[in-house]
Amino acid sequence: MKESVLFWPVRLEDKTLYILDETKIPEQIVYLKVRDYRQAVDAVVTMKTRAFGQFLTVVYAFILEARKAGRASPEVLMLLFEKIADAFNGSRPTFPFEEVTGMVLGMARGIGGGPHFHAVLLRSLEGMLDGIRRQRYGRAEAAARLLSNGERVLTHCHVSGEMALIGAICRRQKKRVRFFATETRPYLQGARLTAWELKRAGCDVTLIPDNAVAKVMADKKVSCVLVGSDRSAKNGDFANKVGTYQIALLARHFNIPFYALVQPSQRLASGRDIPIEIRRDDEILTFEGRRLGDKKLQAYYPGFDVVPSRLVTRHIAIDPTSRGPACEDAEGDGRARA
Amino acid sequence: MKESVLFWPVRLEDKTLYILDETKIPEQIVYLKVRDYRQAVDAVVTMKTRAFGQFLTVVYAFILEARKAGRASPEVLMLLFEKIADAFNGSRPTFPFEEVTGMVLGMARGIGGGPHFHAVLLRSLEGMLDGIRRQRYGRAEAAARLLSNGERVLTHCHVSGEMALIGAICRRQKKRVRFFATETRPYLQGARLTAWELKRAGCDVTLIPDNAVAKVMADKKVSCVLVGSDRSAKNGDFANKVGTYQIALLARHFNIPFYALVQPSQRLASGRDIPIEIRRDDEILTFEGRRLGDKKLQAYYPGFDVVPSRLVTRHIAIDPTSRGPACEDAEGDGRARA
Repeated sequence: MKESVLFWPVRLEDKTLYILDETKIPEQIVYLKVRDYRQAVDAVVTMKTRAFGQFLTVVYAFILEARKAGRASPEVLMLLFEKIADAFNGSRPTFPFEEVTGMVLGMARGIGGGPHFHAVLLRSLEGMLDGIRRQRYGRAEAAARLLSNGERVLTHCHVSGEMALIGAICRRQKKRVRFFATETRPYLQGARLTAWELKRAGCDVTLIPDNAVAKVMADKKVSCVLVGSDRSAKNGDFANKVGTYQIALLARHFNIPFYALVQPSQRLASGRDIPIEIRRDDEILTFEGRRLGDKKLQAYYPGFDVVPSRLVTRHIAIDPTSRGPACEDAEGDGRARA
Repeated sequence: MKESVLFWPVRLEDKTLYILDETKIPEQIVYLKVRDYRQAVDAVVTMKTRAFGQFLTVVYAFILEARKAGRASPEVLMLLFEKIADAFNGSRPTFPFEEVTGMVLGMARGIGGGPHFHAVLLRSLEGMLDGIRRQRYGRAEAAARLLSNGERVLTHCHVSGEMALIGAICRRQKKRVRFFATETRPYLQGARLTAWELKRAGCDVTLIPDNAVAKVMADKKVSCVLVGSDRSAKNGDFANKVGTYQIALLARHFNIPFYALVQPSQRLASGRDIPIEIRRDDEILTFEGRRLGDKKLQAYYPGFDVVPSRLVTRHIAIDPTSRGPACEDAEGDGRARA
């Protein structure tokens, strides 16, 4: 099974971070070359990378700076790490940057110094990433188990290569699964990323307007919903791309199972605690440089919404004990993974 | 109160029909010059005009051809009218072309010939249009009565100038009303037409992504929904731009009144009888000539959906007895109306 380039969209080679520019897909598969953490933060803010790519960008940015720091003392490195954490924590509100940077800082503090601090820290971070790769495979396997032969899956936005993996697993299991992807305005992740990678993975996929969700449900064109999440709370509420909430409500109305691929949640008690990013209204008022409405028009574009746990038929969680395949061949440019 | 150019987007001057090209708004206010019914049908098929503009295009196309036919006999004119009716009836499925052309043919048959057939027919058609203008003013007045001071109205797609008129009536009545317009992918009627004309009419309007409907309802940013309709059935079900159905379901979930500006319904018993047009998938797969997804990607774009009557808090119908103002100054190029 080939991995989608979107499954692991960030790579580190020596002292350069290669971040897949998701705004260029499907026309081009190009990577931003990033040489310090500030450039990495910038790639996040401008949404060149998003979702799981943000997670990888954070962790690799720490590794990159640790490599560049060479033989700096543990104290100096910790100060640098705290600066990196602050920069990412202030970048975008909804994605749990604080949890990711907190994990890395906790790891570094746990190692606590010593002559091998540097080497141990790098091995720990790289080991963590390898574990997460296995866990994402495990979660995809769990999602595939929920899908029956003949299933017609509606998805929204994009789950960083995981939907294509789920499709591939189903095919290996001889299950026929069709996908319906919403286009996901304004960033069009559904059209540009999800449908693109599903098609490349040989899956049967149909794009629909965001406005056609109730229509395809009423017409029984879809038999379940499967979406990812950007942030989870302890009570099972989760935030995902805006539009997910209304799809969940409609799925409940039409009695269609609603499955969510969720993250572990460490900090927030409920969805009410998840901060929702309000994006600049330019992102909805322009497309490819063309103004879509009147010049003085105002817009309101919340980037995410929160799905209450009661609307979720099944949370499909990352399983920390998963021993899924670790290193399959990725498509793309063949650069070695860090 | 100035009329939006979109309120009466088609005009007839001598033997030329001027059809507002709605695809060019907001950049330009330009009119297609149409000199026969075939060109008029083409403007409908390519969606240069839509919704109420389609109605006007049909009626004016008959008037245009009757003028061109000069002193043709009633029999010859009836044959021509039947050809025109067939051409429009075969143009797009959801809008009730058959009802409109049937009405015109019925009128012509009712006159039945005689020496003044031609003149009587033209006066009848022009009189009917004048009546419809009054009725639309009356419907806007009725809608404005439903809106309270401080109301926050969510609308979808575009109601051919009527929303701006409702906003203007509310302002005259010293009621503060805010509008939220969905962008209405893929044609972006909300961004390009509704928000544009509301802004020009001096109304407070905010554009939102189609995906943010549940979010703004949950956050209590909107207090009611008000939409138009493309076709109604006798039981109160109606078809409108795809996405209206899910907005109606969400309004019910959040206990928000859902108002619909509806047409008289003459033929269809229920929404199940309304044929739904499936548009070419190019319309969702491209934007301004740029391909949005993979080349071989397939898409499904139903142009409309049906809202069942039970979800409608109040149907606001055309009132045939309305005596609203008939001829106010329109903005635009100042050409005389037919």
